[in-house]
Amino acid sequence: MSASTPFSDEFLNPNIGREIHDFACQLWPINRSITGAGVRQTLDMIKAHVPTLVTRDIATGTQVFDWTVPQEWFVREAWIKTPDGRKICDFSENNLHLVGYSVAVNKTISKEEMENHLYSRPDLPDAIPYVTSYYKPRWGFCISDTERQQLPDGDYHVFVDADHFDGSLTYGEAFFEGETDDEILISTYVCHPSMANNEISGMAVSTFLARHVANMPSRRFSYRFVFVPETIGSIAFLSQNLDALKAKVKAGFNLTCIGDDRSYSFLPSREGNTISDRVARHVLGHIDSNSTYYEWLDRGSDERQYCAPGIDLPIASIMRTKYGVYPEYHTSLDDLEGVVTPAGLAGGFFATCRCVEALEHHCFPKVTVLGEPQMGRHGLYPTLSHGKASSDLRLMMNAISYADGKHSMLDIATRCKVPVWTLYEIFNLLEEKGLIVKNDNPKN
Amino acid sequence: MSASTPFSDEFLNPNIGREIHDFACQLWPINRSITGAGVRQTLDMIKAHVPTLVTRDIATGTQVFDWTVPQEWFVREAWIKTPDGRKICDFSENNLHLVGYSVAVNKTISKEEMENHLYSRPDLPDAIPYVTSYYKPRWGFCISDTERQQLPDGDYHVFVDADHFDGSLTYGEAFFEGETDDEILISTYVCHPSMANNEISGMAVSTFLARHVANMPSRRFSYRFVFVPETIGSIAFLSQNLDALKAKVKAGFNLTCIGDDRSYSFLPSREGNTISDRVARHVLGHIDSNSTYYEWLDRGSDERQYCAPGIDLPIASIMRTKYGVYPEYHTSLDDLEGVVTPAGLAGGFFATCRCVEALEHHCFPKVTVLGEPQMGRHGLYPTLSHGKASSDLRLMMNAISYADGKHSMLDIATRCKVPVWTLYEIFNLLEEKGLIVKNDNPKN
Amino acid sequence: MSASTPFSDEFLNPNIGREIHDFACQLWPINRSITGAGVRQTLDMIKAHVPTLVTRDIATGTQVFDWTVPQEWFVREAWIKTPDGRKICDFSENNLHLVGYSVAVNKTISKEEMENHLYSRPDLPDAIPYVTSYYKPRWGFCISDTERQQLPDGDYHVFVDADHFDGSLTYGEAFFEGETDDEILISTYVCHPSMANNEISGMAVSTFLARHVANMPSRRFSYRFVFVPETIGSIAFLSQNLDALKAKVKAGFNLTCIGDDRSYSFLPSREGNTISDRVARHVLGHIDSNSTYYEWLDRGSDERQYCAPGIDLPIASIMRTKYGVYPEYHTSLDDLEGVVTPAGLAGGFFATCRCVEALEHHCFPKVTVLGEPQMGRHGLYPTLSHGKASSDLRLMMNAISYADGKHSMLDIATRCKVPVWTLYEIFNLLEEKGLIVKNDNPKN
Repeated sequence: MSASTPFSDEFLNPNIGREIHDFACQLWPINRSITGAGVRQTLDMIKAHVPTLVTRDIATGTQVFDWTVPQEWFVREAWIKTPDGRKICDFSENNLHLVGYSVAVNKTISKEEMENHLYSRPDLPDAIPYVTSYYKPRWGFCISDTERQQLPDGDYHVFVDADHFDGSLTYGEAFFEGETDDEILISTYVCHPSMANNEISGMAVSTFLARHVANMPSRRFSYRFVFVPETIGSIAFLSQNLDALKAKVKAGFNLTCIGDDRSYSFLPSREGNTISDRVARHVLGHIDSNSTYYEWLDRGSDERQYCAPGIDLPIASIMRTKYGVYPEYHTSLDDLEGVVTPAGLAGGFFATCRCVEALEHHCFPKVTVLGEPQMGRHGLYPTLSHGKASSDLRLMMNAISYADGKHSMLDIATRCKVPVWTLYEIFNLLEEKGLIVKNDNPKN
Repeated sequence: MSASTPFSDEFLNPNIGREIHDFACQLWPINRSITGAGVRQTLDMIKAHVPTLVTRDIATGTQVFDWTVPQEWFVREAWIKTPDGRKICDFSENNLHLVGYSVAVNKTISKEEMENHLYSRPDLPDAIPYVTSYYKPRWGFCISDTERQQLPDGDYHVFVDADHFDGSLTYGEAFFEGETDDEILISTYVCHPSMANNEISGMAVSTFLARHVANMPSRRFSYRFVFVPETIGSIAFLSQNLDALKAKVKAGFNLTCIGDDRSYSFLPSREGNTISDRVARHVLGHIDSNSTYYEWLDRGSDERQYCAPGIDLPIASIMRTKYGVYPEYHTSLDDLEGVVTPAGLAGGFFATCRCVEALEHHCFPKVTVLGEPQMGRHGLYPTLSHGKASSDLRLMMNAISYADGKHSMLDIATRCKVPVWTLYEIFNLLEEKGLIVKNDNPKN
Repeated sequence: MSASTPFSDEFLNPNIGREIHDFACQLWPINRSITGAGVRQTLDMIKAHVPTLVTRDIATGTQVFDWTVPQEWFVREAWIKTPDGRKICDFSENNLHLVGYSVAVNKTISKEEMENHLYSRPDLPDAIPYVTSYYKPRWGFCISDTERQQLPDGDYHVFVDADHFDGSLTYGEAFFEGETDDEILISTYVCHPSMANNEISGMAVSTFLARHVANMPSRRFSYRFVFVPETIGSIAFLSQNLDALKAKVKAGFNLTCIGDDRSYSFLPSREGNTISDRVARHVLGHIDSNSTYYEWLDRGSDERQYCAPGIDLPIASIMRTKYGVYPEYHTSLDDLEGVVTPAGLAGGFFATCRCVEALEHHCFPKVTVLGEPQMGRHGLYPTLSHGKASSDLRLMMNAISYADGKHSMLDIATRCKVPVWTLYEIFNLLEEKGLIVKNDNPKN
């Protein structure tokens, strides 16, 4: 492991939040779904920042574990005409108006019949809700409850010009080779249309994290970033790569809802004790003492697949405010103004960078001398003993005292009650002085 | 293991409390002790409900571990005549009046001398206390303190017509063969005379539990019920069967003080982490959130023998209000009106049935697919994704997520924060759909 | 292990505090440092109480782990003359006036220049602080801040008549052979000049503890007491004896700041779970429920060496009020009147005796019968069962119930929630009755 901190300057780029937000704005209008052109268009935009991104296509009908890859969906136009001739629920104005994966329809129906195909949220009267029907053919429209209450009686023309056809499920994958084959897996999802925290934020932060990893002067681990449709996409990815992933993935994170500025949140792997769990808990705890720690029962994202029995990958989720917890979740109110902000995105990016950094520094330091080193002889100690040693020296002595080859650097930081990143320079200095060796694995 | 719940209808019989209470009333008048006719008469009455009950006789003088089986005791008559000619402390009116195991006496003595042989409870002036002297020859009478304070001066005629003779210690045993030789052991004691919670309740609930087990349509485990005199009886039983018990008993419960309706209580095995402990804690916790959890130091019943060093059987105690804790304990006030009630007995019966049920369902479910199953395809999922999944589906998904073959059903219930019995139907359904297999032992 | 308590009467000597305090007063005036005549003079005074004490000399320049044994230091005279001819900071009046290990100087300098060589504590204006400069040649004087503020302008004559020369580092070692080669190591330090709690108390209590051990009628363990200069001394001792110490030392304590009467404190070994840690925590907890339990991060004495990675001896620290915590620490206010008292020293002595006693009694009791013994048959039980057994009998039954050969006597005391010393007599009695065997190691 290199003695220098393997991080590019971008890590502390003060404009990073703004840059990620700009990219999120570009991603906003696209009509993503679990399959189709919107996903591919999104992946192309990510590739502009991550040139090594490749896309993988899995044909409709392919069996992936307990599931079957569905058809592609393509929408040309969708709207309702009211009895008084107004066009409402226009898909071209907001893609949330159309129930995701809706089948084609073109007929005039009574208001009463149409009501069975309308979805609104009386508790959030100004929100257009987000509704999908992936696994049963349906058509439907989403509308604000305020608008719905004002619809006149009479006949309505409902029009959905959409196709379902055999094609493929597409996901994106970017691989960055490191010094070893051991991999860090970062996963986020690309199937949500115009909503910001869930889930443009995940795509945007992952994209910039991939760029950050690409720019790292050295990489101890290899990194695999995947941009998949939620559930079916992660299942497809896993089903095609399971043995390799189980052999190589040593840690990783699922990034979701990572762009608002209200909180930091963590959701563990099933057993909650992998290195990913420990790193993320440590980092979030030191970044924000008010971080929220969910439990496995609270899950709802792709950790459901990555940590399923028999899959058992060491993947934990890092979030700002968790899906389902913030009021705007799964509605048109989850936007890039009030909810997702540059500061929120920067915080999410920063937290995941700290986690990657902690993984890169993961080692088992072992002191090379018996008893305490004579720090003064190594230029590390004030020569006049006069009251208390400085807190810096104190931390160095504490770190040395735990450097028994059995405690990892993260363990040592935890024991010393400091953020692990305060130890990197200390251990680098001790390594330079020949007082410490850094082992990859525990050793007596 | 059978997919159907192996429980008879009796489990939810609304009259069960009344039936058990009626049986308790039959058991009430008999003069039980650690040996003698009263024990055998009691076992005959139990046999009326549990026809497979057999009695075991161990001869007086037999060495059982550190103890020797004592003589039998038989009382024909016992009373005191006061100076003014009244008969008091009449054994025929209340068998508690005579100190248990009293030797014969027939003489006229001063009040002063008699006082040395009287036992009363100034703190409970209307109670006749329960006193025994098994291992030192003595005679004595128990009397309410109120009556004692009014005894006139003068000479008293004390009369105990009782024999001690070589005979046997008798206990009852009912065995119900199951699909395997692995056994569940249920133990209660039959040595207390006319007191209700301690210990007619234990006999009565165990009798009905044995009948319940007898009527179960299938039994995964074999069941052994023992009705023993406390301490010497469990020691005698253990000394004659130890190797077989250690090989076969996988779980079990000591039932005592299980008929009042004031609380539920639990007392663990010595180490407190056997399957019996975990099942009983779980069941009592979900039946009554105010259940009391004692510790080993609070013990005082036959778990002292079952969990002694070198015996180490997995036996925990299930109680309503624990011996020594309720004020009427070991006095004539521990009766079948104020203390033990139909509702109290039904609750004790219900709790132990739940424990038996949990043991019968004990298994290590393992999901058969990788990743989450596509629940819709199996008819288990709403097809329209619109807000939160129902809590039932949520529980099913949580249960599946823990069904890794390493968590037992009880573990899964605990992780999911639900009573284990809410999972039986779910796992049966998943088993029918081929999504789950139930292993008897942990398996990856 | 002997059935009798292996302790001399001195253990409860009511005058012991006064005796230890008298010895502390004798040790007070000597100018100790990490090397030199003061150390040897101190060791001679200890030898008067501990005749088997031997001294070890390690030559200046010897490499000891990462350190080199320094030169000896000898001071003949040291003072400052003020412009008005007064002699201040006179070493002959208080050895704290001279910075420890000061080099010789003899010149007249301006007040301004002299100020660079003066040390005072504005926060404790009447205290002379304790300052040393072992590893960089310096000279300097310590003075109360009150006196410093009144120094007149003008030229000052500074005079230190001191030598540094090749000699040796000296430490003392007393060994008491026991029934086995397994050793208990007691360490304290002898390098502090005239300060009472830190560290005359450690020397004084260790001396009397060594005398106590010498007088014990039997010793299960061998005992090694070392009186070393702090840090360099323990490092020197360890570097010359490491393999033997690692093979033999089974437990031990570092004694420091053990003479005031304000509190009891404990500082653990690095991992905190050795037998020494468990014994000391137990003893202090039962001696004083307000005892303070520090953690490894709070360390600052020779446990830093004894528990360093690769050394890993099972050494915990027992203290009254910890170094750095009491206001008089490392100043002339740490004296034998206000700070260290006979009661304080007696308490420290008593606590360490209790720890030694617990180690001597350390065993794994195993009951010899199956089930509970019939206590009455062994003369251990009231024969009339009438309400609750006495609390003594209860404790005996609890102790037996845990005597499974796997719990140590300390474990059993902890489980029974009593001080371990309340069990010695009980287990001796049970051993006499043949109901218990005491194994040295866990055995089923």
